[in-house]
Amino acid sequence: MAVETYSFGRKLFAEGLGTSLLLATVVGSGIMAQSLSGGNVAIALLCNAIATGAILVVLITLLGPISGAHFNPVVTLVFALRREISAQASLGYIGAQVLAAALGVWLAHMMFGEDIVQVSEKVRTGAPQWLSEGIATFGLVITILGTVRFRDSFVPVAVGLYIVAAYWFTASTSFANPAVTLARSLSDTFAGIRPHDAPAFVAAQIGGALVAYAVCAWFLKSREEQCL
Amino acid sequence: MAVETYSFGRKLFAEGLGTSLLLATVVGSGIMAQSLSGGNVAIALLCNAIATGAILVVLITLLGPISGAHFNPVVTLVFALRREISAQASLGYIGAQVLAAALGVWLAHMMFGEDIVQVSEKVRTGAPQWLSEGIATFGLVITILGTVRFRDSFVPVAVGLYIVAAYWFTASTSFANPAVTLARSLSDTFAGIRPHDAPAFVAAQIGGALVAYAVCAWFLKSREEQCL
Amino acid sequence: MAVETYSFGRKLFAEGLGTSLLLATVVGSGIMAQSLSGGNVAIALLCNAIATGAILVVLITLLGPISGAHFNPVVTLVFALRREISAQASLGYIGAQVLAAALGVWLAHMMFGEDIVQVSEKVRTGAPQWLSEGIATFGLVITILGTVRFRDSFVPVAVGLYIVAAYWFTASTSFANPAVTLARSLSDTFAGIRPHDAPAFVAAQIGGALVAYAVCAWFLKSREEQCL
Amino acid sequence: MAVETYSFGRKLFAEGLGTSLLLATVVGSGIMAQSLSGGNVAIALLCNAIATGAILVVLITLLGPISGAHFNPVVTLVFALRREISAQASLGYIGAQVLAAALGVWLAHMMFGEDIVQVSEKVRTGAPQWLSEGIATFGLVITILGTVRFRDSFVPVAVGLYIVAAYWFTASTSFANPAVTLARSLSDTFAGIRPHDAPAFVAAQIGGALVAYAVCAWFLKSREEQCL
Repeated sequence: MAVETYSFGRKLFAEGLGTSLLLATVVGSGIMAQSLSGGNVAIALLCNAIATGAILVVLITLLGPISGAHFNPVVTLVFALRREISAQASLGYIGAQVLAAALGVWLAHMMFGEDIVQVSEKVRTGAPQWLSEGIATFGLVITILGTVRFRDSFVPVAVGLYIVAAYWFTASTSFANPAVTLARSLSDTFAGIRPHDAPAFVAAQIGGALVAYAVCAWFLKSREEQCL
Repeated sequence: MAVETYSFGRKLFAEGLGTSLLLATVVGSGIMAQSLSGGNVAIALLCNAIATGAILVVLITLLGPISGAHFNPVVTLVFALRREISAQASLGYIGAQVLAAALGVWLAHMMFGEDIVQVSEKVRTGAPQWLSEGIATFGLVITILGTVRFRDSFVPVAVGLYIVAAYWFTASTSFANPAVTLARSLSDTFAGIRPHDAPAFVAAQIGGALVAYAVCAWFLKSREEQCL
Repeated sequence: MAVETYSFGRKLFAEGLGTSLLLATVVGSGIMAQSLSGGNVAIALLCNAIATGAILVVLITLLGPISGAHFNPVVTLVFALRREISAQASLGYIGAQVLAAALGVWLAHMMFGEDIVQVSEKVRTGAPQWLSEGIATFGLVITILGTVRFRDSFVPVAVGLYIVAAYWFTASTSFANPAVTLARSLSDTFAGIRPHDAPAFVAAQIGGALVAYAVCAWFLKSREEQCL
Repeated sequence: MAVETYSFGRKLFAEGLGTSLLLATVVGSGIMAQSLSGGNVAIALLCNAIATGAILVVLITLLGPISGAHFNPVVTLVFALRREISAQASLGYIGAQVLAAALGVWLAHMMFGEDIVQVSEKVRTGAPQWLSEGIATFGLVITILGTVRFRDSFVPVAVGLYIVAAYWFTASTSFANPAVTLARSLSDTFAGIRPHDAPAFVAAQIGGALVAYAVCAWFLKSREEQCL
C-alpha cells in the first residue's frame, strides 16, 4: 500500500511491539478466560481464540506497512528464503520477536497481578501434538503466502481468522510460532507449555513452514509465470 | 482479480488442499469442542461453527483465484450447468474433492490421536433433516451465485457467514456438500453421520442445488439482460 | 454498484426470499440453540444473535442490488418518506415482507419437525420492552441511512453487526421489524411473542423509525447541502 | 472519504449520539448478559464484549465522517495535541461525551426497568487494574493513529476488534475511556465501577494515551517524512 519506507530501528520496534501485544493477549486472555469460565474449558478457549484473532487483525493492519508484521520467526525464515528480507535483517527480526514475546508474557502477568517470572508445568507432548503444530504452521504459511499474492489488503483478516480456526482444529491449539512457544513456556497459566516440550514444538513448526514454502513455490506459479 | 491462469494439475491440487483442510477443521474442531465443552452441546456447536466459517473465508480467499474454490461437488455441478467448467474438468474436481475430504478426516483423527479409520454410528435421518439439507444447499448456492454476480470479492466472507448461520438454522447443522457428507461418515465423532444416512443427505443436497440453479437463472436476470 | 435494474416481480421475490430466510434463521436458530444449550439462556441468545447477524450480512449483500433488501416494513416506510420508493411499490414490498415472514417461520418449524401452525404464548410487554423496541428501531434506521450515505458497500456488515449488538443492549432482544414481530407471534418457541403483545411492539417500532427519519433529515445534512 | 463538512452543532450531536449508544450498549448488554448467563461470568463477558465491539464498528462507520467519532476524551485530547482539532472544539467534544455517556447509562437502565439513578459499588482498584487501563488505552490510541495513517477506511473494524480483544487481555476489561469510566460509575450492574475508583482509572488512561501519542510521533515517521 504505502510507498513509504521505514528505518530498520522502526521495523524492529514494530516487530517487538506487535509480538509483545500478541503474547500479552494470548496469555492475558487465557488467564482471564480460565478464571471466569467456571471450569468450562471450551468457553475459555473460545474467548482466548476470539481475543487472539481480533488482536492479530489489528496488529497486522497497524504494523504491516512498517515491518511486514511477521511476529513469528518461521514467517521471517520463509521471507528470507524468498529473498524478501536479508539474512542479517532476519536475524534482527527474530531476536526482536523472541525477546518481545517474553516481555509480552511478563506484561500479562503484571496486569493480572501474577508472579512475573514463572515456568510452565503444562505438558504438551506426543506425536498428535507435533503433527498438529506441523499442520498448523503449514496452514499459516500458505495462508500468508497465498493471501499476499492474491489479495494483499486481506492478509490481516485472513491471518486472524486462520488462527481462530486453528485454535480448534488442531490438538495443540495451534502455537505455530517459535517465539510464541518459547514465551508461553514462561507462563504457568492456561496458555503455558513446559519448557521441556518446547523444542519439539519448534521443530514441528519449522518443518511445517518449510513444507509450505516448498509447496507454494510450485503451487502458486501461474501459467504466465512458467512462460517467463 | 487475477488475469493469471493455472494449470489443471494446480487446480486439482487447490480443490484437494482446500477440501482436506475444510474437513480437518470440521471434524477436528468438532472433536476438540466436544471434548472440552463438558456436555454443553450448544457451546460445542458454536465453536465448531466459528472454526468452520473462519477457515472457509481463508480457504476461498486463498484458493479461489486458482481453482474457483468449490470444495463441493454440487457447487461444481452448478458451475458445469452454467458452462463455466467443462464436464471433464468437473469430474476431475469432484474426484479430487471426494478423495481429499476423506484425507482431511483422517488427518483430523491423526492430530487428535484417534483411530484413523472409523465408521460413524450417528443417526441423522428423517424428513426434517432432509428438508434441512435441501434448504441449506439451496441457500448456499444462491449465496454463491448472487455474490459472484454482485460483489465477487466478498464471496469468501459471504460463504463463511452463510455456513455459520446455517449450522444453526437447519436441524441437520447444514452439511450442504456431498463430499463433506461422505467424509463425515468416516468419523465416529461429534461431526459424524452414519453411512446408511448419507445417500438421502446427498440426494437432498443435489435437489436443493438444482432448485437454486433454476431460481437464479430466472431471478438474477436484469432488465438489461432480458433485452439482449 | 450495479447499473442494472430489475423487474418489480423480481424485486418482490427478493424481498420475499430474504424475509423468509431471515425468519427461518431467527426462529430456527432459536429452536436449535435453546434445545442444545442446557438451560443457559445467554448461550442460546448468543448463538441466535450470531446466526441472525451472519445471515443478514449475506442476504443484504445478495439481494440489496435487486430490491434494496429492506425485509422490514418500517425500512420501506422510511424510504417511501424519502421518496426513494413509490407509495404503490412500498405497499407491494410490505405485503411481500409480511407474507414471506410467516412462510419463513413455518419453514423453520418444518425443518425442526415442529407443528407448523403455532401461536406463541411468550409474554413480552411493558414499558421497558416498548422503549427497547423504539430505541432498537431508531438505531437500525440511523445505521441504514448513515451507512447508505457514507459507505454504501458496508451496509450489509453494518446492519448485521448492529443487530448482533441490539440483541444484547435492549431488553426485548431487538425485534425492530413489524413483519418479524407478526411472524414470531406464530412460533411458540425461543423467539416467539404473544400475538396480544405484538401491536405495541409494532407501534414502538414505527415510532422509533419516524424519529430516526426526522433526526437524519436534519443531522446528515452537510454544510454543502445547506448551501444548495 | 467525504469532502463534505458538517456544522459544529452536528459534530457535537454526533459525539453525543455515538457516546450515548456506546454506553447504552456496554451497560445494557452487561445487564442482559449477566441476568441470562446463570453465573458463568466468562459467557457474560463474551456477550458484553461482542456487543460492544459490534456497536463500535457501526457507530464509527456512521458518525466518523461527521465528527471523527472520538466518543472518548483521551482520543480527543490526542487529536488536539496533533492539532487536528482546536482546543475550544475539543472542550466541546469532551463535554458532549461526558454528558452523553451518562445519558446512555440512564437509557440502558430505563430499557431494563432498573432504577435510573444508581451508584456503583463494584470495586475496581489496585496496581494491576491501573496498569491494565494504561496498557489498554495505549493500545487503543496506537490502533487509531496507525490505522488512520495506513488504512483509514478500516478504522471502525480495527477499533471494534481491538476492544473485543482488550476486554479479555486486560485485568480491568479495558474501559480505556474517561467518559465511559465516569458513566459506568453511575450503574450498579455488571459493567459498573465505584466512583471512588474512577479517578485512578482516568489517570491511567490519560497516561497511556500520552505515551502512545509520544511513541507514535517517533514511530510512524517514515524515511520520506524525516527528509522533509
